[in-house]
Amino acid sequence: MSENKKIIEALLKFRNERDWEQFHNPKDLALAISVEANELLELFLWKDASEADLNKVKEELADVFAYTFLMAEKYNLDVTEIVMEKIKKNAEKYPIEKSKGRADKYTDL
Amino acid sequence: MSENKKIIEALLKFRNERDWEQFHNPKDLALAISVEANELLELFLWKDASEADLNKVKEELADVFAYTFLMAEKYNLDVTEIVMEKIKKNAEKYPIEKSKGRADKYTDL
Amino acid sequence: MSENKKIIEALLKFRNERDWEQFHNPKDLALAISVEANELLELFLWKDASEADLNKVKEELADVFAYTFLMAEKYNLDVTEIVMEKIKKNAEKYPIEKSKGRADKYTDL
Amino acid sequence: MSENKKIIEALLKFRNERDWEQFHNPKDLALAISVEANELLELFLWKDASEADLNKVKEELADVFAYTFLMAEKYNLDVTEIVMEKIKKNAEKYPIEKSKGRADKYTDL
Repeated sequence: MSENKKIIEALLKFRNERDWEQFHNPKDLALAISVEANELLELFLWKDASEADLNKVKEELADVFAYTFLMAEKYNLDVTEIVMEKIKKNAEKYPIEKSKGRADKYTDL
Repeated sequence: MSENKKIIEALLKFRNERDWEQFHNPKDLALAISVEANELLELFLWKDASEADLNKVKEELADVFAYTFLMAEKYNLDVTEIVMEKIKKNAEKYPIEKSKGRADKYTDL
Repeated sequence: MSENKKIIEALLKFRNERDWEQFHNPKDLALAISVEANELLELFLWKDASEADLNKVKEELADVFAYTFLMAEKYNLDVTEIVMEKIKKNAEKYPIEKSKGRADKYTDL
Repeated sequence: MSENKKIIEALLKFRNERDWEQFHNPKDLALAISVEANELLELFLWKDASEADLNKVKEELADVFAYTFLMAEKYNLDVTEIVMEKIKKNAEKYPIEKSKGRADKYTDL
């Protein structure tokens, strides 16, 4: 089994043992991803990047991963496939010569 | 190479070709995760879970994954490891007998 | 009429002319606030605080205000009242002598 | 003094007593708005709109207001003015005849 299939299996086992599939519709999963992303973000609030607590970063990042993997599973999406496709798309939006060393959004290039 | 190492390699190649490492400090990566999570969330705004546009979901979910993988790389964290550890921790916060079929936060169990 | 009542009246007029009340349940309003907050946040992504585009900041901040006012209206809450009450509560969580000059969360003081 | 000037004065007093102005640059204020918006959002996670705890909604909504007011103050923006301007702009993006009863984004109208 692939690495990400194993992660997803572990997440589903945890979820199903608690009978939580009933709550995990895609809209609430999207909410959960945003909520967890902001618990991660909060670790950097009022601080320099280097001041965040690494142990907490680990846990909150894991939570973001957990719900993004569950969302991928919900739609039966292959993680490698969607990320690789997006990289290709972004390569067109951000051609190297135009975007090199610039932080601008593609709409401002 | 493991599945997620390959994903991360592809993301780093894309980033380095554009000389963007200078922008990718952990604080801004955390911002990016939240921003992308909310572009995903917006696809469900004012809608039922079933009404979201699947093609857009795919792309926005891929963006969330991209920055979470880059964050993991930045801290040299193994994705499988941190997710598995978090599942263990959550199993303690949410014992099956207390949390089965309930959507409550562990602080309210 | 108070300043905020006037703002809310203008927002309700705009909403009702478009027959959008049907979409504005509290859960979706909370989603909208997060989505708009992140459009504001995106203006600072990969940038120093001073580099954000002021005209865009104005617009995105206005959007956050719009949905927070609509949320207050939905629950029939008085903005001055809830903010003043929260300041009182925070004054207890963050006593001056303990929190002066420190960015820590009250749980870490 | 106007209603919102009074709210802002109270927020500044609270902040200055704690010597927190040093942390309140616009980028971190934008982070704070997103973080608070997601604490509000979390109250609706896995739930119907009607199931959120009203007392907590009040507090989290107040927190979102607090940071949006502080952001407006930071840029010396008048809340009524920016919201009224945005309503005008949105009226152009969402003409009544095209958007009536529809939840679509203006780009999809």
